[in-house]
Amino acid sequence: MIIQGKPYRTIWESTVGDCVEVIDQRYLPHHVAIRALDNVETAAEAIRDMTVRGAPLIGATAGYGMWLAVRDAPEDLVLARARAAKELLDDARPTAVNLSWATALVLARMTEAEPGHRRGAALDTARGIVEQEVQRSRRIGEHGCALIAEIASRHPDRPVRILTHCNAGWLAAVDYGTATAPIYAARDAGIDVEVWVDETRPRNQGASLTAFELAEEGIPHAVVVDNAGGHLMQQGLVDLCLVGADRVAANGDTANKIGTYLKALAAADNRVPFHVALPSSTVDFSLADGASIPIEERDPDEVRRIDGKAAGGTTLRVQLVPDASPARNWGFDVTPARLVTSFITEAGVLAPDGLSVLRPQAG
Amino acid sequence: MIIQGKPYRTIWESTVGDCVEVIDQRYLPHHVAIRALDNVETAAEAIRDMTVRGAPLIGATAGYGMWLAVRDAPEDLVLARARAAKELLDDARPTAVNLSWATALVLARMTEAEPGHRRGAALDTARGIVEQEVQRSRRIGEHGCALIAEIASRHPDRPVRILTHCNAGWLAAVDYGTATAPIYAARDAGIDVEVWVDETRPRNQGASLTAFELAEEGIPHAVVVDNAGGHLMQQGLVDLCLVGADRVAANGDTANKIGTYLKALAAADNRVPFHVALPSSTVDFSLADGASIPIEERDPDEVRRIDGKAAGGTTLRVQLVPDASPARNWGFDVTPARLVTSFITEAGVLAPDGLSVLRPQAG
Repeated sequence: MIIQGKPYRTIWESTVGDCVEVIDQRYLPHHVAIRALDNVETAAEAIRDMTVRGAPLIGATAGYGMWLAVRDAPEDLVLARARAAKELLDDARPTAVNLSWATALVLARMTEAEPGHRRGAALDTARGIVEQEVQRSRRIGEHGCALIAEIASRHPDRPVRILTHCNAGWLAAVDYGTATAPIYAARDAGIDVEVWVDETRPRNQGASLTAFELAEEGIPHAVVVDNAGGHLMQQGLVDLCLVGADRVAANGDTANKIGTYLKALAAADNRVPFHVALPSSTVDFSLADGASIPIEERDPDEVRRIDGKAAGGTTLRVQLVPDASPARNWGFDVTPARLVTSFITEAGVLAPDGLSVLRPQAG
Repeated sequence: MIIQGKPYRTIWESTVGDCVEVIDQRYLPHHVAIRALDNVETAAEAIRDMTVRGAPLIGATAGYGMWLAVRDAPEDLVLARARAAKELLDDARPTAVNLSWATALVLARMTEAEPGHRRGAALDTARGIVEQEVQRSRRIGEHGCALIAEIASRHPDRPVRILTHCNAGWLAAVDYGTATAPIYAARDAGIDVEVWVDETRPRNQGASLTAFELAEEGIPHAVVVDNAGGHLMQQGLVDLCLVGADRVAANGDTANKIGTYLKALAAADNRVPFHVALPSSTVDFSLADGASIPIEERDPDEVRRIDGKAAGGTTLRVQLVPDASPARNWGFDVTPARLVTSFITEAGVLAPDGLSVLRPQAG
């Protein structure tokens, strides 16, 4: 997608092929910084410190991280290094299932490969994950666009108003995004859309990432506080909610950024469709329901302090709470499947009880 | 209540009696500043710019504002000045009904008074409003404490965990508060309580005011983002929700700080009691239901920028959103009466359909 008029993905191989480069999302929206990842430790750190975030992009970064771990390894150490790298990467963030999915896939392809071809298998698999995510986003966009077009046909006199939470945009994926893919596809199809962007405390991925990418793409939007969604839906100002997911259980229970559940409750209470957009790699068929999805508790300082642009353009961190007040900081919540209208996947729009068509075939 | 070990109210007459002083709440929690209000324009400005906020305190300030308007007026202009002052004050904030309730009461008492006694009637009425609010808060505390004690008796091994939104604390009232009054009363009764403090974007009254007053009073608490309440309730970490109100319709529909409705939905979904604490002055019997409660839309810059304490202790404002991204900013939402477990009032704990006992008698 577009930043300052130039096309970007969120992750790419450097032109000389010696490392992987990513947009350092910690500095958005005020600075567009690029960070080079040239070993597995840096890749794990980039996942942990949220230089990169979003389930699909975490998977893509982890895939390349496996390659970075073995790229220069002596042949007899390649598989041992890969196994250690998988452990390191899997520990970087607990909630996104794409992480261990990607590392497991790279390790499996490396193990299948003949000695001498394992490093190449790692790189090929990492590239394959990236291209597959792009294709999946594109297809999610097509399927979701049909839902938006249907609403547009009923309201030809006004834009379709979409509420989204967190950033399940192209910045969370490799390109197009998951929740934003239908929005970009609708825009490309000539449908007027307007997006309510939840700011998404505490890390403000909505205010700083979703707002940024929509602004760069010229899509009408307004940032609202996380508290506003219920009022917007009560007032009839939301036609549909469209969010991403970090991990979905087999029954459709959906772990996504904390606060998603509250919006799903408001959508149900006001009969607003609530759609979850995700690539099939985000479904964890090993979990029957959402009760066993691990919910990350993060540093309370993410609640107590916030970064913003100060006068003069520098980024400053300010403290929001009294010195004496502690905070707690859970990263995700689980939206029960009963509150989800449909899952928009690369395989089509699925009912909450219809995810099993995505289940990987045994073999 | 206590700040830095010293007892305070939120509003008081200066020692020489020539003006009214208030805690300037815009500088909390990082600085305790006092602001003098010596004419009605300053009083209206203090309400408008949220130097003072919270329905009961807005009413108290408006009462004194009426007195400030007529204090030095020639006798023949007293009623005209009072009527003009009522108009000015009533326009300062649209949602809190206590504002026009207080100005109407002062004007009525002045009109009833004999010429020559009207200025005195204004001052007496303003003082009466203040004392009445303190007494109401105290009684709300007693009634609410009984609800907390009942939960404590079922869980003697752990604190009672209370979630609150915004600041309906003593800083929103004159003393004790509305939603916090039962918390302080429970503490005084030896009951262990722990409070989840919603930060309450965009103006962070939870993170900056409720957290501040609980810290000063030594009550265990933790600040959480507004997104967290659903997850906390799903995990069984909330025994009851306790919020204030800005205006309640005759049927129990409750306008309170934006985001309250989302917490009420989560409480209902998880069978957590959801209590609204309020003085009877907050009920607007002229409104049959919540649909006609005016909802204030405020400056989008409250969403786009935030104040915090920077290194060195100075307060700085930083920008949270991209330069190109607009924001929208509604101040309140309406929680339908069906989601309210009970109203805790000075007259007792009332069911949502039982507010009519508070209706002022005609005559």
